Amino acid sequence: MLISLPAFQSSLKLLNHHEKPPFKLPSRFSITNSQNPDCQFSTFFQANQSSVAAVVFGEASTRSRLYPLTKRRSEGAIPIAGSYRLIDAVISNCINSNITKIYALTQFNSTSLNSHLLRAYSGGLLANQEFLEVIAAYQSPEDNGWFQGTADAMRRCLWVLEKHPALEFLVLPGHHLYKMDYQKLLEEHRNNKADITVAVLDNMRDHKTGFGSFKIDINDRVIGFREEQELFMPSSVHGSKFNNDDKFSSMGIYVMNRHVMIKLLKESFPKANNLKDEVIPGAISLGLKIHAYRFDGYWEDMRSIEAYYEANMESTKKTNMKYNFYDRDFPVYTLPRHLPPSLITNASITDSVIADGCILNRCSIRNTVIGPRTRIGNGAVIEDSVIMGSDIYESMSEQRIGGEDGKHASIPIGIGEGSFIKKAIIDKNAKIGKNVKIINRDNVIEGNNETDGYIITSGIIVVVRGAVFPDESIL
Amino acid sequence: MLISLPAFQSSLKLLNHHEKPPFKLPSRFSITNSQNPDCQFSTFFQANQSSVAAVVFGEASTRSRLYPLTKRRSEGAIPIAGSYRLIDAVISNCINSNITKIYALTQFNSTSLNSHLLRAYSGGLLANQEFLEVIAAYQSPEDNGWFQGTADAMRRCLWVLEKHPALEFLVLPGHHLYKMDYQKLLEEHRNNKADITVAVLDNMRDHKTGFGSFKIDINDRVIGFREEQELFMPSSVHGSKFNNDDKFSSMGIYVMNRHVMIKLLKESFPKANNLKDEVIPGAISLGLKIHAYRFDGYWEDMRSIEAYYEANMESTKKTNMKYNFYDRDFPVYTLPRHLPPSLITNASITDSVIADGCILNRCSIRNTVIGPRTRIGNGAVIEDSVIMGSDIYESMSEQRIGGEDGKHASIPIGIGEGSFIKKAIIDKNAKIGKNVKIINRDNVIEGNNETDGYIITSGIIVVVRGAVFPDESIL
Amino acid sequence: MLISLPAFQSSLKLLNHHEKPPFKLPSRFSITNSQNPDCQFSTFFQANQSSVAAVVFGEASTRSRLYPLTKRRSEGAIPIAGSYRLIDAVISNCINSNITKIYALTQFNSTSLNSHLLRAYSGGLLANQEFLEVIAAYQSPEDNGWFQGTADAMRRCLWVLEKHPALEFLVLPGHHLYKMDYQKLLEEHRNNKADITVAVLDNMRDHKTGFGSFKIDINDRVIGFREEQELFMPSSVHGSKFNNDDKFSSMGIYVMNRHVMIKLLKESFPKANNLKDEVIPGAISLGLKIHAYRFDGYWEDMRSIEAYYEANMESTKKTNMKYNFYDRDFPVYTLPRHLPPSLITNASITDSVIADGCILNRCSIRNTVIGPRTRIGNGAVIEDSVIMGSDIYESMSEQRIGGEDGKHASIPIGIGEGSFIKKAIIDKNAKIGKNVKIINRDNVIEGNNETDGYIITSGIIVVVRGAVFPDESIL
Amino acid sequence: MLISLPAFQSSLKLLNHHEKPPFKLPSRFSITNSQNPDCQFSTFFQANQSSVAAVVFGEASTRSRLYPLTKRRSEGAIPIAGSYRLIDAVISNCINSNITKIYALTQFNSTSLNSHLLRAYSGGLLANQEFLEVIAAYQSPEDNGWFQGTADAMRRCLWVLEKHPALEFLVLPGHHLYKMDYQKLLEEHRNNKADITVAVLDNMRDHKTGFGSFKIDINDRVIGFREEQELFMPSSVHGSKFNNDDKFSSMGIYVMNRHVMIKLLKESFPKANNLKDEVIPGAISLGLKIHAYRFDGYWEDMRSIEAYYEANMESTKKTNMKYNFYDRDFPVYTLPRHLPPSLITNASITDSVIADGCILNRCSIRNTVIGPRTRIGNGAVIEDSVIMGSDIYESMSEQRIGGEDGKHASIPIGIGEGSFIKKAIIDKNAKIGKNVKIINRDNVIEGNNETDGYIITSGIIVVVRGAVFPDESIL
Repeated sequence: MLISLPAFQSSLKLLNHHEKPPFKLPSRFSITNSQNPDCQFSTFFQANQSSVAAVVFGEASTRSRLYPLTKRRSEGAIPIAGSYRLIDAVISNCINSNITKIYALTQFNSTSLNSHLLRAYSGGLLANQEFLEVIAAYQSPEDNGWFQGTADAMRRCLWVLEKHPALEFLVLPGHHLYKMDYQKLLEEHRNNKADITVAVLDNMRDHKTGFGSFKIDINDRVIGFREEQELFMPSSVHGSKFNNDDKFSSMGIYVMNRHVMIKLLKESFPKANNLKDEVIPGAISLGLKIHAYRFDGYWEDMRSIEAYYEANMESTKKTNMKYNFYDRDFPVYTLPRHLPPSLITNASITDSVIADGCILNRCSIRNTVIGPRTRIGNGAVIEDSVIMGSDIYESMSEQRIGGEDGKHASIPIGIGEGSFIKKAIIDKNAKIGKNVKIINRDNVIEGNNETDGYIITSGIIVVVRGAVFPDESIL
Repeated sequence: MLISLPAFQSSLKLLNHHEKPPFKLPSRFSITNSQNPDCQFSTFFQANQSSVAAVVFGEASTRSRLYPLTKRRSEGAIPIAGSYRLIDAVISNCINSNITKIYALTQFNSTSLNSHLLRAYSGGLLANQEFLEVIAAYQSPEDNGWFQGTADAMRRCLWVLEKHPALEFLVLPGHHLYKMDYQKLLEEHRNNKADITVAVLDNMRDHKTGFGSFKIDINDRVIGFREEQELFMPSSVHGSKFNNDDKFSSMGIYVMNRHVMIKLLKESFPKANNLKDEVIPGAISLGLKIHAYRFDGYWEDMRSIEAYYEANMESTKKTNMKYNFYDRDFPVYTLPRHLPPSLITNASITDSVIADGCILNRCSIRNTVIGPRTRIGNGAVIEDSVIMGSDIYESMSEQRIGGEDGKHASIPIGIGEGSFIKKAIIDKNAKIGKNVKIINRDNVIEGNNETDGYIITSGIIVVVRGAVFPDESIL
Repeated sequence: MLISLPAFQSSLKLLNHHEKPPFKLPSRFSITNSQNPDCQFSTFFQANQSSVAAVVFGEASTRSRLYPLTKRRSEGAIPIAGSYRLIDAVISNCINSNITKIYALTQFNSTSLNSHLLRAYSGGLLANQEFLEVIAAYQSPEDNGWFQGTADAMRRCLWVLEKHPALEFLVLPGHHLYKMDYQKLLEEHRNNKADITVAVLDNMRDHKTGFGSFKIDINDRVIGFREEQELFMPSSVHGSKFNNDDKFSSMGIYVMNRHVMIKLLKESFPKANNLKDEVIPGAISLGLKIHAYRFDGYWEDMRSIEAYYEANMESTKKTNMKYNFYDRDFPVYTLPRHLPPSLITNASITDSVIADGCILNRCSIRNTVIGPRTRIGNGAVIEDSVIMGSDIYESMSEQRIGGEDGKHASIPIGIGEGSFIKKAIIDKNAKIGKNVKIINRDNVIEGNNETDGYIITSGIIVVVRGAVFPDESIL
Repeated sequence: MLISLPAFQSSLKLLNHHEKPPFKLPSRFSITNSQNPDCQFSTFFQANQSSVAAVVFGEASTRSRLYPLTKRRSEGAIPIAGSYRLIDAVISNCINSNITKIYALTQFNSTSLNSHLLRAYSGGLLANQEFLEVIAAYQSPEDNGWFQGTADAMRRCLWVLEKHPALEFLVLPGHHLYKMDYQKLLEEHRNNKADITVAVLDNMRDHKTGFGSFKIDINDRVIGFREEQELFMPSSVHGSKFNNDDKFSSMGIYVMNRHVMIKLLKESFPKANNLKDEVIPGAISLGLKIHAYRFDGYWEDMRSIEAYYEANMESTKKTNMKYNFYDRDFPVYTLPRHLPPSLITNASITDSVIADGCILNRCSIRNTVIGPRTRIGNGAVIEDSVIMGSDIYESMSEQRIGGEDGKHASIPIGIGEGSFIKKAIIDKNAKIGKNVKIINRDNVIEGNNETDGYIITSGIIVVVRGAVFPDESIL
């Protein structure tokens, strides 16, 4: 324990109780700069591309803002843009940045995420001494509980993380949509000889990222942290205030030097559960050298169903694509499939993306994302929507067995003849009968009809996975 | 008919070590029925699903009828129906029939076929003790030549084939399009205690299969072979003639018992190059028990560009599909890809299949197969065609480098704005400029303009791989 | 026992449904026999090899009898016989029985087990529509807790299990060592038209399996269940007692028809946590047709460190091998490695197995299992022991960094010069210095010195993973 | 030497392009230095690790000096050091040098090499956009012949090689044993702005490498080439002679810039068959900038059975290992296997390596390499030998079937009881009976007894693959 107990207590108070007791950095805390020549470890290895390991978190929290899309899956596993899962964006960032040692820590609704990660990335995209290792929450003789937060999860997995001789750990939320060359982030980290580097959005955004804000000095060194509206500021910068123009929203992305990470988790803040509002502010208060890396590209955190919906709509636009799925030099990876091409009988398609394996009959599709194996009947009209598609082709026998609820045997997965869908998200395996209208007839803005198979939020109808809508339904 | 009657007679003499005709089946030749209890081998193993190994040939011959599609690839590697290669049909038959020990013998333009087979089937579709082993033609201290035919190839690979303790070998041409449950074929083979079983088309077809015809008796036992117009009939059935109504076209598919195959290749006909017109007729003449398995499903042998074109057109029709790519219970496998969904700006699509990763702008598509990564410009109209697509997304730098011939740097891969294509096959990576018309203006039926990047056959225009058509071209 | 007595009593009459006593099937429970023609499901599919899915549990319970081997791993992940993990036995049984749809449910110390399963079996041993899907315990909106037992785990994963159109589920504990052709078990299940079939040890064993005992009638139908000393017996067989000679120990292996499983877990016993003492006895009381499959082969349940030790010692004996790792026809699969061969300077080796990648200097090895990458110094003597080996070759820099506890930098992983080890289990990555004696000098039978890096049980010394023993240590 | 003298003379003047003498670049040849800013290509891409593709040749030639080890395999596929194939050394060099785009060109006895490469490296060691693509010799409409040499092979595969946007091609013989960090070679190549860089042995060796020798100037620029005894020297350095002390043996390793390679093969020397004695000398004569990279590590070219034998003997020595298979930082990769550990009943083993899966009974082994699945009987003594092991565990039925020649059914694969083997190489699957003596009783130095199953060369007995030696044989 290098940090005295009073120091730890006062830093916790600072964190959560916005008090301002004057304290000095304990002189005994020796990891002010883990990259100086005194650090024994770095004399053996040299920091380089292969000295980095990524730690990806599969979900924001157990209280997802994307319910009911997260009813059976974590945020990272939500289908997006027809062929992808949300977590593919971050994993592709890693691969494209040549960071190919990846730990994914999961616990909430993790089954489909684990399955996706392993089928997509363990087979052929990563190899040799590269890996994507999924660490699912587990019980052990020492601890029977779940991961209590990002810091707790990393602490409990330290025995695994430490096995890999990484000099730097790159901590990444897994549910954000953006493209970043992490090597540039790491370069700045090394050039600044930082203990920790945090990525921040350097332009003012109209929403909170959920990871708090940093105050930085003229050299982009972090000197303060503010969670939401409250302010935490160590005494060394006593008196100063965050102004609107010096607020940099955290992206929840951290580069931490190996020994710094281990000391913070084990010795300095052994009971901290989260990085964002406990360990990182604590590190600031301890005077560690924390650098801010400014990022000004497209970034979307799927803070709501509406944001998720808009991100999908973006993918249907050819020009000014904010997030380009068709870029050969920075491709987005995902699970390889061997589906047949989409069979189209007679369709008028405008500003839409069509995944493979679909069967589209005489229909009209506009501003819509059509996921794999989607079946659309004659006369159907679909506008401004996200159709996730189907996990399987139903065989005749299965169609007779019925829906996931065992009822409505005769309605197959897909969109039935003559149906009209507008501004809706249709989750996987839903069975929409004939002449169904999913148009939000009553202009509901918010409404929870989950037992009927849908909710409405921000005026967007979300049909839950596997829901069944009989013929002639109108909503 | 490559083997003359005297040749047969002389080979028959070989059996008896130069004894005089007439001859009886030499008593020393003991493989009249390899499945009877006398056969030492079958007392150890029992014939079952895992006792079979398949031998697939990658091409019909070096004189392909599908040139120029076979300029850089063997017949089995030709793209078909948007997402597939021709050989996927036979390999999928094997997998769906639970025959998962497969040797593929290749030598003609084998690079892309080998690459496809290994990337598609060695990674994840076959596993454990299952395998698809590609045996490319090779030189050895004993033999510096190429494979001289199917029989020669199998003889030279016997040291590999014999390694596997298969009791039965299933010989398959790799360039046919059909669905067959080979287990039914094997079942008949075993039930009839046959030495060899051949699959035959049991209905009269209006074209020759290229594998000759069999005369069979009332028990479906083969009693004669005819190559094209000529007739071979062993003396034991002397006098009989083939009538039109007892002609059964061979599909080139043979089940051979292990010891039968080894003896025929090594001892009986050690110099025979081909199975179809040397070894199989020879086996008939030796009196082996050869059973005919009648097959009445859809079968297409891609005997011409026209047949290939028609098979593709079939895949665009939703109803009465002769060969169903969307059947979950008998799926067609191929190389898995992780391409983005197709992005469609404004298209009218009728009776067509669209593979993934395409970018279709304002265009009209009718009765057409669109392959992966196809790019179609504004105002283009495509009818009754097969567009194979592109192997890559071109980066900006590559577009500047130019075509495969180093010229026409400014024309990207794909179909340019305002172009009109009708009844054409556009091979991979072709660069069609703006306002090009590929419409066979002069109604040519047959024409070889390969140096200009295309040929015409049966009125179908075939644009060769990587060809470049400058803006405003008309043909 | 969660099932209420009235529930049991009301169904006891069902036990022999050929008997007269008039009873009515409880209306809420309709699955007297799921294989009869009335069952809608079985008219679609036919039971066959591919209609079965296995559900494997990674550990016996959170209170492992194999601690400290389970300090960082679940029971299934414990190394055994040099090159294997315990769970390889059951997974190999599945593969050798052609059951290749496998779900593995894990939660206790699951990291290394998950990693092993995925690296060993997802890459190449299973493929196509075969799978081994690891389902780690997870939180969901409906349930924030851990799996509470085998029944609870299966119920919470039903939404995953139901996706696969399996007609029968084969439930398997993952920590047992035995070879069984599960197809024979399934055949008996189908021939007897049973709802559930349980595998039992048909010979009297001197220890309890932990899964209770069954009383069976003359047709091998289960008519009673006894957990440990207590007896549960429905009233219809009131008065009878288990005699020693009609006690059949359960192996914890169950075949359950799909609809039976779903109804039992969801409707009949929706709050039961375990199969063995709640659901199965409940099913007996409901009168379901439960068949017992007698197994008389070698079976070891690793009920203690001593049993684990003995199983390892078995693997060093060439003759009368109880569990044969060298059997080509029933191979044991595991993670493939590409280690160099073992380099042996000068060793006398008797009745031992040596894994690959070892470096053995002048040493003597007797009755010992030597795991991968084991390094043994000059003059060392090892007898009657299990040396698990090392996960890595230490580079020079790592040797300087020190042990897993950061101390003893100078002692490399392995067994140092002149050391003597007898009747010990040395877990992975342990660092035994020079002239160390691990011989149980004081003949301790049971002793817990975990803080010193070892425990003693049944006179066997167990050195914990990564422990460091300085030069000249004696214990 | 195929290049005509005039062609040489016209370009001799190019040799020193800093010199005054006015000369004109031959109009047909414009690549004086492909890395200068004029080169269009290099403005698009920057040379870096991922801009390199390797081209590996599977064998030296069709006239292998390692016969009979090459009877059924190419040189690259010969087993070495127990667990490896010779080609693993070069492929591992590539992987360890982070060169992961690899083309392997094969044609001679390529079946086992292709199979090894694909099973070892396509599954898990290379991934994503990394690849090892085997290009087997093939026939095409343009060319029905075999590859006529290295230059011819590369020219005919140019259409494949050009697909990859590599800026530099690294040409590698696949049958040499050495460790080289190719990135250092490439760095020198780039620093010297060379057109071609050749690797040379910078110390005098007592044998020829078979790739000729270079004369280099003070800046390590190549100014002359000598094949064997003859001397080629352009006229500009007329009069000079190679002295012993300025002879640098070529290793057959070339780095060639993309455009240089294409122009040399297609335009300058379109009929040259080989790189070493046609294209490279031609490039010198054309005045290209050819740099020599000096390599002073261990290098073995397996120029004879004796050299191969010695390399194996090296692998059994722990100290002063010339080629270290146990180096974690520069590992040697190969086919992963999941064999059981070696089971040793009672063996005295000295200075030997033992692969996995062996069954060694009471025997004595000294200075010997024991390959996978080797079985050694009681009382056997093996010294100074290479035992390659077995491809399979024989099942009982196979043992009865007999050897590869169908005889000697009763002799199983392996070394029988009481046999004595000294200074021998026993190829795979050989069946050595009981009390056999393979000791070169008559001290033969050279002898060809291939029909008896062995040859003798340099006093080393080489038992051919699958040979059978009946009990009591002595040789």
